[in-house]
Amino acid sequence: MENISEDKVWINTCVPEITPPSLKNNIADTDRLIKGIKKAIDSENVSADLFLIKKLPHLLRQYDYKVKAGIYEDKGIWNLIDVFPADQDKRFYGLAVDLGSTTVVGRIIDLNKKTIVDEMHFNNPQIAIGSDILTRIHYANSNKEGLEELQKLLITAMNRELARIREKHAISSRYIIGMTIAGNTAMTHFFLGLTPYWICREPYIPVINNPPVIRGGDIGLDINLNAPIFVFPNIGSYFGGDLIAGILASQITHEKEPCFLVDVGTNAEVVIGNSDWLMACAGAAGPALEGGVASMGMMAGPGVIDKVKIDPDTLKINVSTISGAPPVGICGSGLIDLVAQLFLAGMIDIRGKLVPEKCADKLTEQDGIRYLIVVPAEKSGTGKPLTLSQPDIDALIRSKGAMYTILTTISNTVGISMNEIKKFFVAGTFGSYIDPRSAIILGMLPDIPIEKFVSLGNTSLKGAQMVLLSADARQETEKIRDQIAYLELNVNQEFMNLFSAAKFIPHTDRSLFPSVPIVSTANNT
Amino acid sequence: MENISEDKVWINTCVPEITPPSLKNNIADTDRLIKGIKKAIDSENVSADLFLIKKLPHLLRQYDYKVKAGIYEDKGIWNLIDVFPADQDKRFYGLAVDLGSTTVVGRIIDLNKKTIVDEMHFNNPQIAIGSDILTRIHYANSNKEGLEELQKLLITAMNRELARIREKHAISSRYIIGMTIAGNTAMTHFFLGLTPYWICREPYIPVINNPPVIRGGDIGLDINLNAPIFVFPNIGSYFGGDLIAGILASQITHEKEPCFLVDVGTNAEVVIGNSDWLMACAGAAGPALEGGVASMGMMAGPGVIDKVKIDPDTLKINVSTISGAPPVGICGSGLIDLVAQLFLAGMIDIRGKLVPEKCADKLTEQDGIRYLIVVPAEKSGTGKPLTLSQPDIDALIRSKGAMYTILTTISNTVGISMNEIKKFFVAGTFGSYIDPRSAIILGMLPDIPIEKFVSLGNTSLKGAQMVLLSADARQETEKIRDQIAYLELNVNQEFMNLFSAAKFIPHTDRSLFPSVPIVSTANNT
Repeated sequence: MENISEDKVWINTCVPEITPPSLKNNIADTDRLIKGIKKAIDSENVSADLFLIKKLPHLLRQYDYKVKAGIYEDKGIWNLIDVFPADQDKRFYGLAVDLGSTTVVGRIIDLNKKTIVDEMHFNNPQIAIGSDILTRIHYANSNKEGLEELQKLLITAMNRELARIREKHAISSRYIIGMTIAGNTAMTHFFLGLTPYWICREPYIPVINNPPVIRGGDIGLDINLNAPIFVFPNIGSYFGGDLIAGILASQITHEKEPCFLVDVGTNAEVVIGNSDWLMACAGAAGPALEGGVASMGMMAGPGVIDKVKIDPDTLKINVSTISGAPPVGICGSGLIDLVAQLFLAGMIDIRGKLVPEKCADKLTEQDGIRYLIVVPAEKSGTGKPLTLSQPDIDALIRSKGAMYTILTTISNTVGISMNEIKKFFVAGTFGSYIDPRSAIILGMLPDIPIEKFVSLGNTSLKGAQMVLLSADARQETEKIRDQIAYLELNVNQEFMNLFSAAKFIPHTDRSLFPSVPIVSTANNT
Repeated sequence: MENISEDKVWINTCVPEITPPSLKNNIADTDRLIKGIKKAIDSENVSADLFLIKKLPHLLRQYDYKVKAGIYEDKGIWNLIDVFPADQDKRFYGLAVDLGSTTVVGRIIDLNKKTIVDEMHFNNPQIAIGSDILTRIHYANSNKEGLEELQKLLITAMNRELARIREKHAISSRYIIGMTIAGNTAMTHFFLGLTPYWICREPYIPVINNPPVIRGGDIGLDINLNAPIFVFPNIGSYFGGDLIAGILASQITHEKEPCFLVDVGTNAEVVIGNSDWLMACAGAAGPALEGGVASMGMMAGPGVIDKVKIDPDTLKINVSTISGAPPVGICGSGLIDLVAQLFLAGMIDIRGKLVPEKCADKLTEQDGIRYLIVVPAEKSGTGKPLTLSQPDIDALIRSKGAMYTILTTISNTVGISMNEIKKFFVAGTFGSYIDPRSAIILGMLPDIPIEKFVSLGNTSLKGAQMVLLSADARQETEKIRDQIAYLELNVNQEFMNLFSAAKFIPHTDRSLFPSVPIVSTANNT
């Protein structure tokens, strides 16, 4: 086995000892090779498929029966991927993908060195059909070739990116011998060409929860035709493989004490648990937190405000932007910073309402809606003032209230208080930029010691990468899938009561947020 | 399980209990079905492939989640073939095929009743490319699309026959959920689309000895796309899957005492063994025995002479023909009868030479070659006399000598005398028609009690049928394959000595054939 790390691998290469054919030893090419592999990996279960078998006589002779075999394990059987010349020091590669509905991120991994060779990062081309998943599902269902088209958009874009990386690093597609991909349930269905029709209709039934390992050729991806593709399982329509990958990456299942894992995307997805148990739930809390609904909101990029500081004395709003460019908009983490700072400065009250006395000349009004000028026109990168409207703040308050309510509901369900939480993992791009202190001030995240918050970045991609490189991680994925209990959020009276209480900054029950100062909104300048 | 017999089956149907989806139970369609199947068959290893999964949501709803599932086992995993409505009493079918280089015979089997529904029987359409295997191999190797063409000829003809049978019995191709096929090594390669290039070149290496179970869709056969196709394994270029199937059908492996199994096709294939051991060898002995090389030789059909009796007093040749039509030619078994009768009548001598004194006016000569008029023109179905030439007889003597030499060589190798043989199985069309007594008189088969000879008919087809219906038979196939020792015939001095001694009728060593009378060729009429 070539594997250099301690982890068992399920995608591997080996160099079988093969006696060249002779009159004394005339077993068939395929059987000769398989016999060698069986001995090399010490397994009786080795299998090859017809389409590869067709090519073997030529390949074995081309390489003079000195070959390296690519193999992968599935259900206890080692399957032959391909054969390569043994005397070459060619590297073998794998592809790990986070299949987001907005962004697709993939990494080409050197399977031998276990290093990242290159990365792809592109907008999901299905956005051309619809930016939200429901539009795409509708498109797939109402157009004859709609599903195929959505799948093809994805595969074509992946192949384009693969071609770019392959050319750059002189990698032949044959040498990409494995892939893992994690996406939400609908994206997983699109990737596999499975109808999403029943996902969005009561009782919300996916075609599959546990996709089989498929092969590169099955979906026309420009990797080895026989390369296994591991598609992360989902728990249901609302809890996708990206989250299973996230749980894996968080290693929450290695913790003795209870931890939280929160991923904020279009939905807020929350997991609580430890090595013994896991409970998950998901709810609509996202858009406002992502900055998507604010009039000045945008995705992270140059000139986008990611940090805000308001001088408590002068009430001057200081913004910092990504790459220091003149400000053009604000991202989710910037928005949370901004609103937290507005609260600390007394410029909004505990209901999130703009306080005219404090905002003074930064306040304008149009069609009866109040706007706060965050960046005046002369300092803005757009030539226009960047403003935050009262409805933008209201939406954020609702979202943060929903998030806190979900956290409270799930911790109440399992009977764990916030103080018992050992670590609070925050996943996603959102998690990478957010200032937990600002989120606590807003009452979006619980008031626990700041050092308990751990930002994990793209956990979906990390989880995919882990499974690509480790049979143990793959097995852990199954364990997570089987162990997780899904909490269906009932929007009942109790939930609504909790939600109402959470729609204040930081909360109606101030005792829950002892670290957040009480701020006066009285104008004492 | 639907299986009504005692035998374990590997192609089966089951009726999984499926709870229809609800908000309380929203697991995915595929997982729901697989869960039901796991419970129904009490196995944890159930798998479905992507292309079937794509169709499941539609099928499950069409049948209202009341389904019958077609499944097959391979390497310990039960694979889903298809789902069908549960409330129908549709039958499920399998196809067993003997893939001969000359003739293809197939049977549609009712998998539930284990009865034969219908049979197909057609000339191998590859004869259009070449009547012998070597010509076809050459064609495959020297034409760009040659191999594909040879494969397509076969599949197209099978599909045509399948269509005929399906129409006649109103069987949808979806309901043919399994297939087994046994052929020689080259034919197996053609069927699978594997190059035969290396089969006929030293050191004679097939592409594969143990083909994987493939699926109907893999080769475009009009059975269920996911129906498993079990292709019999071969031992090498010269010992094909048809012989493994034959050994299985003979049940030689259930015998305590040693038995012979002989299959005469283009080659003479001989197996000796019992439940503990098996040895096989093959050698060129066939064509003359099949009647193929005699000038009046032809395959069995109306008007073909299959039995001959010569009155020892009048020396009148009485022939009986298939379906009683006027004689047009002679088949292999008829030829053996004829030559044995000629010998008993003293019309040929122990070297097989025509005796002019005895043959009298039945003898003609042309270009220095002697001919015996077997059927005069006026009684012949062709309007011409049917004749047997001296070279025809010489060829038969050589063939029978080769056959006896092979039998002697292999029994000597294992140290078993002919008297120890318990049963002597004769396979093939040849075996069905041959009169063992005539073969003994000629010295082709050993002089053992006539009741030890058992004619088995088409053992290749029977073996295929057995595996179609039984997991035990399938397993036995593997046992046979692993157990068999192949004896490479060395045409050395010892072999040549044995062969020379066997080129007399019945043999130079008369003590080997005590039951064959000593006949005078002196003309005493």
